[in-house]
Amino acid sequence: MENFDVSDMAAAQDYAPKHFLWEVTDGVALLTLNRPERKNPITFQSYGEMRDLFRALVYRDDIKAVVITGAEGNFSSGGDVHDIIGPLTKMDMKQLLRFTRMTGDLVKAIRNCPQPVIAAIDGICAGAGAAISMAADMRLGTADSKTAFLFTRVGLAGCDMGACTILPRIIGVGRASELLFTGRAMGGEEAERWGWLNRLVAKDTLLADALKLARQLADGPNFGHSMTKTAINHQWSMSLEMAIEAEAQAQAICMQTQDFTRAYNAFVAKEKPKFEGN
Amino acid sequence: MENFDVSDMAAAQDYAPKHFLWEVTDGVALLTLNRPERKNPITFQSYGEMRDLFRALVYRDDIKAVVITGAEGNFSSGGDVHDIIGPLTKMDMKQLLRFTRMTGDLVKAIRNCPQPVIAAIDGICAGAGAAISMAADMRLGTADSKTAFLFTRVGLAGCDMGACTILPRIIGVGRASELLFTGRAMGGEEAERWGWLNRLVAKDTLLADALKLARQLADGPNFGHSMTKTAINHQWSMSLEMAIEAEAQAQAICMQTQDFTRAYNAFVAKEKPKFEGN
Amino acid sequence: MENFDVSDMAAAQDYAPKHFLWEVTDGVALLTLNRPERKNPITFQSYGEMRDLFRALVYRDDIKAVVITGAEGNFSSGGDVHDIIGPLTKMDMKQLLRFTRMTGDLVKAIRNCPQPVIAAIDGICAGAGAAISMAADMRLGTADSKTAFLFTRVGLAGCDMGACTILPRIIGVGRASELLFTGRAMGGEEAERWGWLNRLVAKDTLLADALKLARQLADGPNFGHSMTKTAINHQWSMSLEMAIEAEAQAQAICMQTQDFTRAYNAFVAKEKPKFEGN
Repeated sequence: MENFDVSDMAAAQDYAPKHFLWEVTDGVALLTLNRPERKNPITFQSYGEMRDLFRALVYRDDIKAVVITGAEGNFSSGGDVHDIIGPLTKMDMKQLLRFTRMTGDLVKAIRNCPQPVIAAIDGICAGAGAAISMAADMRLGTADSKTAFLFTRVGLAGCDMGACTILPRIIGVGRASELLFTGRAMGGEEAERWGWLNRLVAKDTLLADALKLARQLADGPNFGHSMTKTAINHQWSMSLEMAIEAEAQAQAICMQTQDFTRAYNAFVAKEKPKFEGN
Repeated sequence: MENFDVSDMAAAQDYAPKHFLWEVTDGVALLTLNRPERKNPITFQSYGEMRDLFRALVYRDDIKAVVITGAEGNFSSGGDVHDIIGPLTKMDMKQLLRFTRMTGDLVKAIRNCPQPVIAAIDGICAGAGAAISMAADMRLGTADSKTAFLFTRVGLAGCDMGACTILPRIIGVGRASELLFTGRAMGGEEAERWGWLNRLVAKDTLLADALKLARQLADGPNFGHSMTKTAINHQWSMSLEMAIEAEAQAQAICMQTQDFTRAYNAFVAKEKPKFEGN
Repeated sequence: MENFDVSDMAAAQDYAPKHFLWEVTDGVALLTLNRPERKNPITFQSYGEMRDLFRALVYRDDIKAVVITGAEGNFSSGGDVHDIIGPLTKMDMKQLLRFTRMTGDLVKAIRNCPQPVIAAIDGICAGAGAAISMAADMRLGTADSKTAFLFTRVGLAGCDMGACTILPRIIGVGRASELLFTGRAMGGEEAERWGWLNRLVAKDTLLADALKLARQLADGPNFGHSMTKTAINHQWSMSLEMAIEAEAQAQAICMQTQDFTRAYNAFVAKEKPKFEGN
C-alpha cells in the first residue's frame, strides 16, 4: 500500500487506491467498489488493498467514519469466479489457508478500526460482498438489495469470513442458519424486518443517507465511538461479570476526555457540544 | 442501607428507602423512581441505594418479583446532569472508576438477584434509565416510551453499565450498534418490533399490566425462576456442551423440590398447582 | 439401538425404531413422533432411541438431511406426565441427573450430527418437544403451532435441554426470558415474527415444504453443510478473532473438496453443479 504509508500522516486525503475508489470529505471516507460492468466483484488485489487500508485507519485520526458502497446499483457480487474461484481450485492447503486468512483479516480489520463503518447496499450483495457489509457496524439498504451468503452454492461451507459467527448475532441463529445453509438471497424488506438493515432507504437517496449518518458519527465523540466499537467486539466471549467490569474501565477512561467536559459545559450553556476527539 | 439490613428478615415489607419509593404487596415489590419534576433522574445516592437493595434481595424469600417504574409518565432521564455529570468532570481516575463500577454493580445486582425483574416504561427512558431497564428480565412499555442509550451525546462511549454486552443480545448487534453509536431514542412500536419491549401496553394500564405479570411470576415456582435466571446469566460465555451440562445439573436440582411434586400431584388431581418455593 | 448399529453401514434405509417412525427417501430422513392420541409425548424410551439415532448419524453418509415432525396435527406434548414426570418425582439425585443428562444428550446429538435438521411444527409443541425443535437448524411451522417452554408450569426451571442457552440466540434474550419464565405458548405468527420459525406455511403443505427444503439441502454440498453446522455450534463461546481464524481453517478445508471444483466447472460450463459430498 505504497500510497498510504502509516508513517505519512498527511496522506489520508490523497490516498489513491488501485482497486477501488476512495474519497474523503471532511473526515468522512467513501469507499466505492467500482467494477460495475461485473457488479463490483472482489479480487485478490482488492481484498489485500482493503485489508491494508482498514488496518492503517487505526492510526488515522483524520478519518472519522467510513461508508462502503458499490458503483451503479450493486454492492458487490463477491469473489470473482474467474479471478478467484478458478485459481483457488488449483491451490494447495498452505496457499488456500493464506487466502482464507486474508479474507478473514479484512473482516478483522473492519471490526478493529476505530471508525464507525456503514455499508450502503443496493442490488447484489453476495458472498464476500455480504461478508464485508456484515463486518460493518451498520447497514442501510434499498428494497431491491439482495444479500446472499452464497458460499454453499459454490460447494463450500457457510463459515466464510466470520459469517457463522457474526451473522447469528445480527439476525438470530435460526434465520442465519437458513441463509448460511441455503445460500438464498435476503430481500430488502425482509432484511430490515430481521435487523440486517438498520433502515430501508430509497435508491436515489441511499448514498446521501449513508453519508449523512456517517457525518453525524464523524462529528463525534470519536474517542467514545472507538471505545464503543472495542466493547462490542470484545464482549462476545466474556462472561457478564467480566464484560460489565470491562465497560466500567472503558467508560472511566472516556470520562477523562475533554469531550466529556465539553458536553457538560455545552449543556450548562444550553449549547450544542462540539466534540474534538480527545 | 440501615433500613434493610439483611440480618433483619422481617423488614422487607417495611423497608423505607430514601431515594425512591418501595411498596410490597404480597411478595410483589414495586420500585418507583420518584423525582417526576425532573423526569426521575438517578443520583449517586439512588444508584448506591438500589445496588444495596438488589444485593439484599438475594436473601429475601419474602420478595418474589420486582417491578421497576418511574413516577408520572417517565421512566428515568438517567444520571442527573447537575448532580452527577458535573462532579464527574472533576474527578480523578480512581474516583471515576469507583463510580463506573458502582453503576455496573447495580446492573450485576439486578441480574444476580433471584427474583424476576420487570421494567414498566413510559415516556423518557434515557442513559442510566435505559441501562437499568435493560438489566431487567422483561420490559413492558407504551407507544410513547422513548428509550435512549444516549451516552455518546454527552461525549462518552456506548459501553456503560453493560450496554455493549447486553443490548446486542436483546435486539441484535446491528440494531444495538445504531442505538449505542448515535444515542438516538427507540420509540415504543419499534422497541416492541425489535424485542426490547415484550409487549406494548396502554399508558393507563402499564403499571397494572406489569404488576399482573409480576404477580403471575411471584406465584412461582420461585426456586425454579431463580435457577432460570442464573442459567440465562451464565450461558453467555459457555460452550454449548458446557451450557447443556450446566442446565442438566440445574434442572436435576429443581426436580428434587417439593414444587415439582406439587405440580405433578395437582395434575393428577386435575387441580391448579400451588407452589411454595421449596 | 440394535436395528441401527453403526458398524452396519447398509442399514440406514431399513432402520426400524421402536418408539417413532423413520422413513428415508433418497437420503432425506423423516422422523415422526407417533402417539397422536396423546399428542406425541416423549418417553424415556423415545428419548434414548432418538439420542442413539442422532449419534449414529455422524457416521451415516447415506443420510443427508433430517426432518422431525409429529403425527396428526401436533408436534409433541413433551415429556409424558404419567410415564416421565410421575417416576421423576420419586427418583434420587443420581437418577435425576442421569435423566437430565440424557435429555441434554439428545440436544447435543441433534446439534452435533453433520446433517441439517429441520423441524416441521403444527399444533402443540411443548416442553421437550419445544426443546427438540429448538435443537433443529431450521423450523417451519403453521399459524396454529403453539410452542411452549412450559417447564415452569410443572414446578421446574426454564433451564432444560439447553433452552436458556439456545433460545436467546434464536429470538433474543428478552423474548426468551418471557417464554422461559412464564411458560406461555408462542403462536405461529408471533414465532415467525420473532425468528423462531423460518417460515409460516399452510397446514396441508407443512410436511411437503419441510421435505422440499430438506431435499434442497440434501443435494449438497453435504461436507460443506457439515462444516457450517460445526462452525455455528462452536462460535458461541469463541472470541471474534478466534472464530474468524476457525472459519478460515474450515473453509480452506472445504476448498480442497471436489464439490468446490465441481461448482467451478459447472459455472464455467453454464450448468447446474451436481454435488457428491466429497
